[in-house]
Amino acid sequence: MQVKAPRRGPLVAIGGAEDRQEAAILSRVLGLSKREEPVVAVITTASAIPQEVFDGYEAVFSTLGAAEVLDIRIRERSDAADEDFVAMLRRADVIFISGGDQMRLTNILGGSPVLEAIRARHSEGAVVAGTSAGAACQSSTMIYGGSADDSLRKGAVKMAAGFGLVDGVIIDTHFLERGRFSRLMEVGATNPELLGVGIGEDAAVLFKENKILAFGPGHVILVDSSGITRSNVFELDDGEAVTVHDVKMHALVDGYGYSLSDRRVLGPEELGAESLEPRIAYT
Amino acid sequence: MQVKAPRRGPLVAIGGAEDRQEAAILSRVLGLSKREEPVVAVITTASAIPQEVFDGYEAVFSTLGAAEVLDIRIRERSDAADEDFVAMLRRADVIFISGGDQMRLTNILGGSPVLEAIRARHSEGAVVAGTSAGAACQSSTMIYGGSADDSLRKGAVKMAAGFGLVDGVIIDTHFLERGRFSRLMEVGATNPELLGVGIGEDAAVLFKENKILAFGPGHVILVDSSGITRSNVFELDDGEAVTVHDVKMHALVDGYGYSLSDRRVLGPEELGAESLEPRIAYT
Repeated sequence: MQVKAPRRGPLVAIGGAEDRQEAAILSRVLGLSKREEPVVAVITTASAIPQEVFDGYEAVFSTLGAAEVLDIRIRERSDAADEDFVAMLRRADVIFISGGDQMRLTNILGGSPVLEAIRARHSEGAVVAGTSAGAACQSSTMIYGGSADDSLRKGAVKMAAGFGLVDGVIIDTHFLERGRFSRLMEVGATNPELLGVGIGEDAAVLFKENKILAFGPGHVILVDSSGITRSNVFELDDGEAVTVHDVKMHALVDGYGYSLSDRRVLGPEELGAESLEPRIAYT
Repeated sequence: MQVKAPRRGPLVAIGGAEDRQEAAILSRVLGLSKREEPVVAVITTASAIPQEVFDGYEAVFSTLGAAEVLDIRIRERSDAADEDFVAMLRRADVIFISGGDQMRLTNILGGSPVLEAIRARHSEGAVVAGTSAGAACQSSTMIYGGSADDSLRKGAVKMAAGFGLVDGVIIDTHFLERGRFSRLMEVGATNPELLGVGIGEDAAVLFKENKILAFGPGHVILVDSSGITRSNVFELDDGEAVTVHDVKMHALVDGYGYSLSDRRVLGPEELGAESLEPRIAYT
């Protein structure tokens, strides 16, 4: 299948709990903007404690050299039509979406002028990055719930429509820390076409054309169900145990990548300058 | 490679937290003895609360029709040479090893007359079954520690020598509930020859000749690293992030099996009477 590349700008998904001291990931996110002093807009809509979350990111992005850190404080749907927020986003070089509850993001931003502004800036080349809920929302189909220890039972993983900033993948976060492998195995059984991208804490992926590049100290687990030979999922009632055979997984670390068109891992030597680019950008 | 079949009797590994009411798994364990009223010996060495654990199993095995439930109360190495315990084990039809700490099991029973008695009864046809720690100890190499959220870092998964009741596999328990997929991915990177057998709670496997048969309400995840194409594990220092590519996984449920010699999943239709046998035995 054809995996649609993200639009023009870089798209970064972070697995949550990214380090703020060394800031290996956040510094690369700013570096991707290719501006010395980028304007960063922070969307805290997913969070129940937006002030605290904004303060934290304002501090780290300022330290990393942002010219301005804009507080896009959208709490309800009427805010998402606010012209001031749209104007702020229009001048952002980096749009950063915080963690929290991804259903708040899609519910409040879905179909809004603010989401249109995000898409417009992205297609003009701005960086869009998100962590945890802000990463999960990026795929066309979004996981929003389902306990990992009770998944692989039909209907256990809850899915809804995401922002569709990248197609052909489904993104899960806090992946190793919360043992969410079985969630992406269930997703793959329901539709083997989607590549599962399970991002660990303090790990990130950059979607670039039809490649995924892993970076940061943590792990990225790819769950490729395209070759599954059998599953009982369509025979079951909700709650019954799912079997699925021949799921392929890859554990990637910083410097490794994956070709979405060839469905294979790319090593650092193959990626060459590409895998180094985000590193160089922030040094 | 040749996977050694277990010795003569059935060997059952349970993923922990097996149900005591419906007792789908425990009733099948007794059924495998092919005795109407089997003698069951319960080894509680792994547990810090042996009385409570023994009382629980005595109740459930009695209800299921055991003629006797023997309390093999081994707390230290000197107990493991006790002739009374050896004599009790010699007349057991089912030897059941409780959960707790698997390192207590290998430390206290390793090289003892009691372990020799267990092996002797097993080779004479007795059922050996264990849950949680009592399952993990069954493989030749045993996992005894390593936090799931910090694994896939070199050296994170702790291994030691187990009882070697089955070769060619490495057993992990509470597998889905504690998200231990990354532990078996790390194990597979260190030695791709071993098939990872990750057993969920209230799930079990029967090792029978060169087959693995899954039963019970939960899931069994098999982690086949034999086809991995690359890993950096030997290049790393302890604590560094491990990459591993092309790991194959299978989620099995009751009625499905796996051929250790062919390394492929067997469906219920292929297993035929074999997959049904343990079910018939307890009805």
